[in-house]
Amino acid sequence: MKTYSLNALTDQQKTSLLQRPKMDFVSIFNTVQPIIDDVESQGDAAVKAFTKRFDNVELDSITVRPSDLEVSLSDELKSAIDVAFENIQKFHEAQTQPILELETMPGVRCRKVMKPIERVGLYVPGGTAILPSTAMMLSIPAMIAGCKTVVLATPPNAEGKVPDEVVYIAQKAGVTDILLAGGAQAIAAMAFGTETVPKVDKIFGPGNQYVTAAKMILQNSEAQIAIDMPAGPSEVLVIADEDANPAYVAADLLSQAEHGADSQVVLVSISGFDLVALNQELASQLSQLPRKELAAKALENSFIIEVDSIDEAIQYSNEYAPEHLIINIKDAESVLDDITNAGSVFFGEFTPESIGDYASGTNHTLPTYGYARMYSGVNLSSFQKSITMQTLTAEGLKALGPTVEKLAAAEGLDAHKNAVTLRLRDLENE
Amino acid sequence: MKTYSLNALTDQQKTSLLQRPKMDFVSIFNTVQPIIDDVESQGDAAVKAFTKRFDNVELDSITVRPSDLEVSLSDELKSAIDVAFENIQKFHEAQTQPILELETMPGVRCRKVMKPIERVGLYVPGGTAILPSTAMMLSIPAMIAGCKTVVLATPPNAEGKVPDEVVYIAQKAGVTDILLAGGAQAIAAMAFGTETVPKVDKIFGPGNQYVTAAKMILQNSEAQIAIDMPAGPSEVLVIADEDANPAYVAADLLSQAEHGADSQVVLVSISGFDLVALNQELASQLSQLPRKELAAKALENSFIIEVDSIDEAIQYSNEYAPEHLIINIKDAESVLDDITNAGSVFFGEFTPESIGDYASGTNHTLPTYGYARMYSGVNLSSFQKSITMQTLTAEGLKALGPTVEKLAAAEGLDAHKNAVTLRLRDLENE
Repeated sequence: MKTYSLNALTDQQKTSLLQRPKMDFVSIFNTVQPIIDDVESQGDAAVKAFTKRFDNVELDSITVRPSDLEVSLSDELKSAIDVAFENIQKFHEAQTQPILELETMPGVRCRKVMKPIERVGLYVPGGTAILPSTAMMLSIPAMIAGCKTVVLATPPNAEGKVPDEVVYIAQKAGVTDILLAGGAQAIAAMAFGTETVPKVDKIFGPGNQYVTAAKMILQNSEAQIAIDMPAGPSEVLVIADEDANPAYVAADLLSQAEHGADSQVVLVSISGFDLVALNQELASQLSQLPRKELAAKALENSFIIEVDSIDEAIQYSNEYAPEHLIINIKDAESVLDDITNAGSVFFGEFTPESIGDYASGTNHTLPTYGYARMYSGVNLSSFQKSITMQTLTAEGLKALGPTVEKLAAAEGLDAHKNAVTLRLRDLENE
Repeated sequence: MKTYSLNALTDQQKTSLLQRPKMDFVSIFNTVQPIIDDVESQGDAAVKAFTKRFDNVELDSITVRPSDLEVSLSDELKSAIDVAFENIQKFHEAQTQPILELETMPGVRCRKVMKPIERVGLYVPGGTAILPSTAMMLSIPAMIAGCKTVVLATPPNAEGKVPDEVVYIAQKAGVTDILLAGGAQAIAAMAFGTETVPKVDKIFGPGNQYVTAAKMILQNSEAQIAIDMPAGPSEVLVIADEDANPAYVAADLLSQAEHGADSQVVLVSISGFDLVALNQELASQLSQLPRKELAAKALENSFIIEVDSIDEAIQYSNEYAPEHLIINIKDAESVLDDITNAGSVFFGEFTPESIGDYASGTNHTLPTYGYARMYSGVNLSSFQKSITMQTLTAEGLKALGPTVEKLAAAEGLDAHKNAVTLRLRDLENE
């Protein structure tokens, strides 16, 4: 891996190392727009045609109810899913927010209530791979939030079916409809609704650049949907010091690199970490991976930054705003409060990223590409919206009304003022 | 106002009454894109040129620090602002979420931490009107969240200045920079940053269709910003029963109608409410309003729906998903749990919408146009993102590791599995 020393970099070099590979939004949008238009106007027929073209599968029906499907899975795999499901459920249930209720002044009661988004769409990538973990990360919080219509879209396999692992999870989490489609066509079908696909209000989940582009286009369209976040290629930043085991660091870097050639892998090495041993471990572990070609390509685009102190390491990481941040240093949690931008953080030598990808309980649908500066990863509140409420007593209106009259007058909004004045006049005459 | 009886409507008529006036996104996007492009390439010079063209004001500098400005305001207006400021601060401070910390299994500790978005942009409409209330609604939660760079953009008045009311609030709330610009050019300047305008990560605030279009375009661009929500014209839905005072209902409808000709005003009238008296009140109150022409136009596009029961009224409202919902019925809070879609709700005869517009404590930056189905109004968490964290002990990894190994194997991700296997092997050999 290319290696730089932080303090030897010019400002310009440092800035360029903080940037991700450029995405050509416009060209991808232009590719995706016609697919969206076709699905909007032709519905199911368009989805079927694109599925035949892109996935090479011909389907009679593009939707199926999980309860109509039978599942054949080993007990071992079922119980692994059950353990992960339970941890994810526990951590997301703990995110439940009680009704906030507060008298801001005597007689002025304000509330903030969380309510489920009623209709949601979950995109679970697939095709060659099977991704039960993403099905869990999206369907479990939807279930806890109480969403009524939950559409799970995933590309059909070669036999035109949904993988059993995904069906098992969909049944456990109460998914109402499975859409057998992938890509931009799946996103468009959920955004507009078709003859058989329910229209949804918000669409979640990772995907390739076409899926992401479709989500972005549709959030600005008359389909009136929200999305969880824009998504780029997955990425990890590992901070290691002299106490870190080079074999573990190498394994963590490779577990990100195997996602794809465009994965971003950054190692911030604090003086004393054994980079020679790291490079040996990388080479030997890489040679044994089935996906070694993808991983090797990802490593070519990746780099090591050498720094002198933990402070420098954390500062660089905060500027980079990584999706995954592994802190493999002595007393790792001592830097917890200093982390300002990251999707999910993994502390200490016994917490590889793959633990959070599958089963610790945290969500693996996280902001990439620097979006961790302002987007949260998917969490319970992603499936909810808040509604505020207020109730005034006569006493409350008497106390607060004159303030509102003055402010409305200052803004030249007489009818706003009048709505208060009329009531105050009646209260004075009582 | 046009009056319909809910149960006499065909499904098609009902659907059309739930829809808002069509917005021509594409045409507005095409108008706004060149403004954005100019600001991206020309920076301050482009902003100055657009300000001269659209606001008819020539500025030497487009930014100013609130602390460099002097404020001249009456004590009366200052203290009205102070009361509203304090209520808004109380209600938004109460939204602070403590760190969530949970052991999902022994030795598997998960956390969820809220962190401020570091750089935010607040758009406060202006020009002919002065909108101190919007300045409060955006700057107070930014202050509580702890955002470091807070840019407040507002169009300059005829003298090229920021209104004193807005400066007073900016100083109180710790706004770091004021951008003297409005429209799409202000949004673009904050999204990209210019020579004098700091780049921000998220942009908040209401605005006309050009402001909204600029926010929507930029959230999908290489500027990499988030936005609070798409915004359409303001709207209210009032539910009234036989107990409701027609004068109050008329005043509440008019306070929404005076916002502009495109405001949406809907009255859901439960059998027994005195519609004759309402129409008389509307006519007489309207005739005395300075903005009566705007309000009259808004009423032309508005309508009354007659229903037989409270249940029907709430169901209609939930389908409409109004920005503001006024429940002016007996025992108004009895329907609290039944409300599923709304921006902010006002219960009972003493709670006009203008109370929440200014001073009850709730935020007035709310989802319109049906977006209340899936967007929250602006709140404290709008200025934060959540970061999840996990820490495993050796015991935790021993317990959870085998689950992760099985799931990673099922997904064909060997490097993910290996990151666990390597560690488990060392732990077994200890």
